[in-house]
Amino acid sequence: MTVKIDLNNENSYEIYIEKLKKISFDRKVVVVTNPTIASFHLEYLKDNLSAQELSFCTIPDGEEYKNMQTLEQILESCFLAKLDRKSLLVAFGGGVIGDMTGFAASIYQRGIDFIQIPTTLLSQVDASVGGKTGINNRFGKNLIGSFHQPKAVYIDSSFLKTLPKREFGAGVAEIIKMAVCFNKDFFMWLENNDLNYEKNIDIAIQKSVQTKAYVVSVDEKEQGLRAALNYGHTFGHVIENLTNYKTYLHGEAVGIGMCMANALAVKLGFMSEDDEKRVEKLLKKYEIPTTYKIKDVEDFYEHFFLDKKSSNSKIKFILPVGIGDCKITDEIKRDDVIEILKGF
Amino acid sequence: MTVKIDLNNENSYEIYIEKLKKISFDRKVVVVTNPTIASFHLEYLKDNLSAQELSFCTIPDGEEYKNMQTLEQILESCFLAKLDRKSLLVAFGGGVIGDMTGFAASIYQRGIDFIQIPTTLLSQVDASVGGKTGINNRFGKNLIGSFHQPKAVYIDSSFLKTLPKREFGAGVAEIIKMAVCFNKDFFMWLENNDLNYEKNIDIAIQKSVQTKAYVVSVDEKEQGLRAALNYGHTFGHVIENLTNYKTYLHGEAVGIGMCMANALAVKLGFMSEDDEKRVEKLLKKYEIPTTYKIKDVEDFYEHFFLDKKSSNSKIKFILPVGIGDCKITDEIKRDDVIEILKGF
Repeated sequence: MTVKIDLNNENSYEIYIEKLKKISFDRKVVVVTNPTIASFHLEYLKDNLSAQELSFCTIPDGEEYKNMQTLEQILESCFLAKLDRKSLLVAFGGGVIGDMTGFAASIYQRGIDFIQIPTTLLSQVDASVGGKTGINNRFGKNLIGSFHQPKAVYIDSSFLKTLPKREFGAGVAEIIKMAVCFNKDFFMWLENNDLNYEKNIDIAIQKSVQTKAYVVSVDEKEQGLRAALNYGHTFGHVIENLTNYKTYLHGEAVGIGMCMANALAVKLGFMSEDDEKRVEKLLKKYEIPTTYKIKDVEDFYEHFFLDKKSSNSKIKFILPVGIGDCKITDEIKRDDVIEILKGF
Repeated sequence: MTVKIDLNNENSYEIYIEKLKKISFDRKVVVVTNPTIASFHLEYLKDNLSAQELSFCTIPDGEEYKNMQTLEQILESCFLAKLDRKSLLVAFGGGVIGDMTGFAASIYQRGIDFIQIPTTLLSQVDASVGGKTGINNRFGKNLIGSFHQPKAVYIDSSFLKTLPKREFGAGVAEIIKMAVCFNKDFFMWLENNDLNYEKNIDIAIQKSVQTKAYVVSVDEKEQGLRAALNYGHTFGHVIENLTNYKTYLHGEAVGIGMCMANALAVKLGFMSEDDEKRVEKLLKKYEIPTTYKIKDVEDFYEHFFLDKKSSNSKIKFILPVGIGDCKITDEIKRDDVIEILKGF
């Protein structure tokens, strides 16, 4: 099946959710991947991808390598392969590979094309849609980057066969996020259907991608609605930061963050306790963590302000309104937040 | 006077050619400059620029610092000043400052605004229009970068008072380039009017900027006509490369390159010898070099292929058609080029 990402400009593109078919490019191509993905899936990719000239750039695996040095390594590969302005990069891996390859493509000779072949559930449902690219630095995550849309995304769920169970759950967390924020029917479908790499997953990916596609199409550069995709992230980023990005996968931290946002929404009357429990139950079904022992509530609160993307020191919260709707607000009182944090 | 750069999208902006007026920003601002410009003009700028919070980033002066390391220095200044997505960078200097500040603005938190206050004639007439940003690396010039339009450009020709005479000439070379390629009336005006920092220069800047604005408005991303702005550059880049960027200023190398392109155009019947002499005479009036002793013609020719922007090993030449028009072609025979090179 195909989902069109309609951005009302020349950046529009299509997402193909199906077994990878033969793709052929009459131009030079560099595939960016990491040793883990390459060991599992590179032969499969090579069987399906051909190009005028095909080269490979293997970067180290892990969020800790999502930095300027690795970006330069990708660019170096492009120069050595003598890519020109008509050449193409292929991001073959998870979110880190996608974000960095997209960023490299956006600045190589002032911008060349790239496509995504995401291999993790998280990158299939989330990172591969929307054109956010970037790297981390000592000031925070994704603080250097660009908006650069891929020319196409090829989502083949057979890659998920080799995905560790925890990473699968982390991807499901983002799927649940999308449903809670924007789509009640989708949420109920998730309550009634089990997801695993060979069952229902293509449908879940499609629904998730369609939802995100809608959000991105009305707000490509995140000036309004798109911020709602950060549901669970305001809290999740603090948890990741306090645990040095080591204890939880990103999707897991978002799962806990959603529970915190829900608790706040219940306290403020936007969400019923019953709905809160439904979300929690769904997260637990995939063994996504739903709670985090906060050592110092005041310190946790102060960490909201470390996120340099917050302007004017107001914290933006995304709070569900029931299930299937949400609101973006920076008018939440400190005391209310502190109180729900104490409950964790 | 004001020139509107109309890009038919939200990137359109205005160029103000006049004495700098008070500008005030209700947001955080970082001014990027170098020690040379700062020593001459920073006080003048400070008298005219105010912001919610104003910081300065001073980078080393010179093309050799137009690299990733200096880019990171600019980004570091942005993070230390805690710029957010609504903040602004100001490029205060010549082309190097403009290109690097624009690039930094395009990737800081996935893109923030910047304005240009160019202080050299070259950057006033050329680099400040069009949104090309970038840095050099060991593979060549401007090979990493982006298209990122400034929000406004403030051209104050009183900065030219402190500009060395050679740099003034290098700027005039780009003005002449614009006239030869696109505007016969402008060329004749240049033949009949002397330019210096207090006479006629605002008119020349305006005509030059208007011409480039037209070109950029029909071809923002250089897929066709915009390539004509590289008149003189195909040859000029080789000269710069062969002399290690030390003998000639960029505009001077372009001046020689124009004479080479003209010789080729005369040989191929696109330009009369009389018109060729008129261009040469105008260049000489501003002491812009018009000839370069080629040591090894074959080697010079091979250097065309070092420019990684050439795709499929065809060299793109911009040749004047008389004065005021030009053609872009990659169908020039090697022997024809070699023959005219032998004449230098």
